[in-house]
Amino acid sequence: MAVRRVVVVGASAAGLKCACRLARIAPSWQVTVVEERPLFSYAACGLPYVLSGDVDDPDALRRTADGTLRDEAYFAHVKGVEIRSGWRAIAIDLEGKRLRLAGRDGGEDTLSWDELVLATGARPRRLPFQGDHPRVGAFHTFEDLQRLRRGLERGEIGRVGVIGAGPVGCELAEAFRALWGAEVTLLEQGPWPLPGLVDREVGAVVAAALEAGGVRLVCEAAVTAIDPSNESVRVMWGGGEVDVDVAVVAVGVEPATELAAAAGAMLAAGGAIGVDERMATSLPGVWAVGDCIAVPHAVLPTPVFLPLGSLANRQGRVAANVIAGRADRLPPVAGAMAIKVFDCHLAATGITAAQAGRHGVPAASVWVTAHDRAHYWPEADEIALALVYDPTTRRVLGVQGVGSAEAIKRVDVATQVIARGGTIDELAQVEHAYAPPYAPALDPLAVAAFAAQNQEEGLPARSPLAPLEGVTLLDVRHQWEREERPANGGHALAVPLGELRGEVEALPVNAGLVVCERGARAAEAVRMLAVAGRRAAYLGGGLRWRQLLRWGRP
Amino acid sequence: MAVRRVVVVGASAAGLKCACRLARIAPSWQVTVVEERPLFSYAACGLPYVLSGDVDDPDALRRTADGTLRDEAYFAHVKGVEIRSGWRAIAIDLEGKRLRLAGRDGGEDTLSWDELVLATGARPRRLPFQGDHPRVGAFHTFEDLQRLRRGLERGEIGRVGVIGAGPVGCELAEAFRALWGAEVTLLEQGPWPLPGLVDREVGAVVAAALEAGGVRLVCEAAVTAIDPSNESVRVMWGGGEVDVDVAVVAVGVEPATELAAAAGAMLAAGGAIGVDERMATSLPGVWAVGDCIAVPHAVLPTPVFLPLGSLANRQGRVAANVIAGRADRLPPVAGAMAIKVFDCHLAATGITAAQAGRHGVPAASVWVTAHDRAHYWPEADEIALALVYDPTTRRVLGVQGVGSAEAIKRVDVATQVIARGGTIDELAQVEHAYAPPYAPALDPLAVAAFAAQNQEEGLPARSPLAPLEGVTLLDVRHQWEREERPANGGHALAVPLGELRGEVEALPVNAGLVVCERGARAAEAVRMLAVAGRRAAYLGGGLRWRQLLRWGRP
Repeated sequence: MAVRRVVVVGASAAGLKCACRLARIAPSWQVTVVEERPLFSYAACGLPYVLSGDVDDPDALRRTADGTLRDEAYFAHVKGVEIRSGWRAIAIDLEGKRLRLAGRDGGEDTLSWDELVLATGARPRRLPFQGDHPRVGAFHTFEDLQRLRRGLERGEIGRVGVIGAGPVGCELAEAFRALWGAEVTLLEQGPWPLPGLVDREVGAVVAAALEAGGVRLVCEAAVTAIDPSNESVRVMWGGGEVDVDVAVVAVGVEPATELAAAAGAMLAAGGAIGVDERMATSLPGVWAVGDCIAVPHAVLPTPVFLPLGSLANRQGRVAANVIAGRADRLPPVAGAMAIKVFDCHLAATGITAAQAGRHGVPAASVWVTAHDRAHYWPEADEIALALVYDPTTRRVLGVQGVGSAEAIKRVDVATQVIARGGTIDELAQVEHAYAPPYAPALDPLAVAAFAAQNQEEGLPARSPLAPLEGVTLLDVRHQWEREERPANGGHALAVPLGELRGEVEALPVNAGLVVCERGARAAEAVRMLAVAGRRAAYLGGGLRWRQLLRWGRP
Repeated sequence: MAVRRVVVVGASAAGLKCACRLARIAPSWQVTVVEERPLFSYAACGLPYVLSGDVDDPDALRRTADGTLRDEAYFAHVKGVEIRSGWRAIAIDLEGKRLRLAGRDGGEDTLSWDELVLATGARPRRLPFQGDHPRVGAFHTFEDLQRLRRGLERGEIGRVGVIGAGPVGCELAEAFRALWGAEVTLLEQGPWPLPGLVDREVGAVVAAALEAGGVRLVCEAAVTAIDPSNESVRVMWGGGEVDVDVAVVAVGVEPATELAAAAGAMLAAGGAIGVDERMATSLPGVWAVGDCIAVPHAVLPTPVFLPLGSLANRQGRVAANVIAGRADRLPPVAGAMAIKVFDCHLAATGITAAQAGRHGVPAASVWVTAHDRAHYWPEADEIALALVYDPTTRRVLGVQGVGSAEAIKRVDVATQVIARGGTIDELAQVEHAYAPPYAPALDPLAVAAFAAQNQEEGLPARSPLAPLEGVTLLDVRHQWEREERPANGGHALAVPLGELRGEVEALPVNAGLVVCERGARAAEAVRMLAVAGRRAAYLGGGLRWRQLLRWGRP
């Protein structure tokens, strides 16, 4: 048998993982990776942290854990993979099984393949009026990082406009602000930051963290013009404008699919390359992995475009295994992701209630504010969880967690439940490793599931952001809590939970909105009221959630 | 319909959770909890942390998150549950559906029940020669805590013998040592600390952390005598003896089942009360929850006795739901638990390889040492994972994690896989929320699963504790790593991984044991060697694992 030749297009996480894995498990094969750019195999998710100074040495992103630089020589000698950098793949010849390449210096070449893997990645979305000016650009590559970092180091950048408060926009806002002290204006078209990732209640906490960090956040700001001059850039949106030294456009990425599309590969609804669970495209012998593809989703019926580094690595491995003849498949993904915004830690998995609405999936939400460890543990901090579920099937649709870094753990665990189509009843039985320094005896994730179960029995949770003015308010906290932290300026009927049994008959049939510190007592009160024929709802997540909206400020 | 009466025996986590939940969802019922001791409803898992001083106020353990003391009045007014403290349940009359009580002051009483819930808990195991002396005792109750803390505060306790290095023994060793500076001798009959929870490789890390914390740990020390006098206690074991001011016996707990057994309830193999997944005992109308029962296990074929606070809470809720007529069940448990030993964080789930051996379950292990976050993240720390699986079915049997507190997260996630009978192939596809401050792009848990898959393809991992002397050793690290941290004093053939392809033909057919820093490069080397017909194994977890055995010391 002749040596099999595998050509991979793109030397980022997915492509390289695929190539290296193949070279390992099929060592007699010839594996070549074509990469347009001279710099490759850096941890792109780390770029904001080099800008922020959290990571000192930019080269750290290109090194393995043992300090080896991942350059051509590394891939050749350690991994047995040839990297052709500086070559752009320009056309796939399906019949001849050849790939045409254009060199940086004008040359052309052709590579023959038995299997072709497209890992062409994604590129930053552009605004229609973005133009092409050195003061305006994306933050996507090592080169983008170097350009901005140089400007900061030279003191040329003191005012920054970041357009888009998605994950990259939020990380950048922190990066420019925290180390460099830049004046940062963060403009988001949607009504809250990270709108694709979290619902309003969690988004409001992120907004508070950004503002506490000194970022000027403007939501519902659809940018209409970017006007660069020699001295500065004017960014305009309906309702305002700002002059900055640089404008960074961070409105998401789009899959780079030209090569695949020109060869006739089927694209998924969102425009990314469609693949099956084995990473096979619709073209024979052609596979695709990483930020250019759409993958089956655990909750949504149609494939989704989820450009995440964690998925890219797994997809590369699956493709290599399958190409080498092994049984492997990528199970449907929940889309878990995490992001740090100053000292606010956030993760989300599954879909938001807003996304559910857009996809016609019935959705209800509950909210929980809880200690991340045993409440008496001195280092106990707080997390806030939003749980989205389908009330008709009781399936968990999504979980969003924010607060201390312990929020990430709960999202990782919830991901396991969501990925296999689990219900709120299964989530209620979630098992966790308990000790006071690590978790409460009842994990907040289970408590959130209880809240969902309760809601389905008729204990409705109201959004923690629900207005407290103009509604009948029943505060069931202790007197000392009310005095320290009055709800709605003290305009609430006050009956501590311990006295409610005796008072319930005196309350009106419509008892209104019940509030307490974290939501649990108020939910209990609603149950007591219901027994006595009183209708009421409770403030989900309690008044503590609203306190999170003052993030880090007294 | 007459009011239904539910009597619960035992006012700890499980019993109270059951009682309160019942009072909530069946508010017309009469729920009474009988409790022998005057002090109840404290978080028993927090006791060691009050002794250590981590938690200042002992009453914190009896307070809710909002500061309410959980006393009789609290349960009566807030929860609608009557607590009869100071009354001991002495006999169950099954036919008459009555429970006989003995009062602390000699009185007798009888309670009628429609449903009876036994939450009688566990009591400390005693050594046959333990006797009854104020200098010798268990650490199980609030009273035990108060007695010891008083002794420490008065300076009467400077030398402590802790018998048993299970979870409580290890926590106590730290508690006596860290704040009070006591001389602590920790005696363990087994060959390493926490032998019921972790295998030797992880146990050795715990041993190192104990010793780094200043605890004198003696393993394989079967205590043969405890000899108290007015001034001190002499503790003797085969091979040694020590004089201490107090001896704390922490050799585990046993279920308190007298009441159930006398009524004819079926006991499970280990002696705990047998229940089904609804928490029903073999007796009509009698349920059991908490530390007195055995529950179905996710890995083992027979029910297990797992006295864990997290499970107790869930069991109480399940019993209440079922008694109230709802569909609920406790799924099989993986037995996840966590423990802090000084600054060493540990969690485990499923079963150990040693347990598998005792139960005749085929088991193999792999080991991974990894960064807990992106390796370039400045706060990245290290975790070490041991993965135990059944090579015949590929099922994950257990995961043990140790190192930074991030180890707990991986065990929580693994628990979800184990609880549903997942395989190493499913674990390899585990999805996680990735961002550099929280995890590497490929999670250590997935890497451990890869190692297991590799092992099943013929890439054998050797225990990280395997002797390096007297074997052929191939060190594939960089020169600078070898010079900084020589393996086996430098007595190894040195071929950096990047040069191995060129050197492989010169190596003997039996290439021996390959070592690197964390195991990944050595595993890759074994694969390269295999291609060239060379047999080899690699040191699982690499030399870093051995470095963990010097816990915190240079």
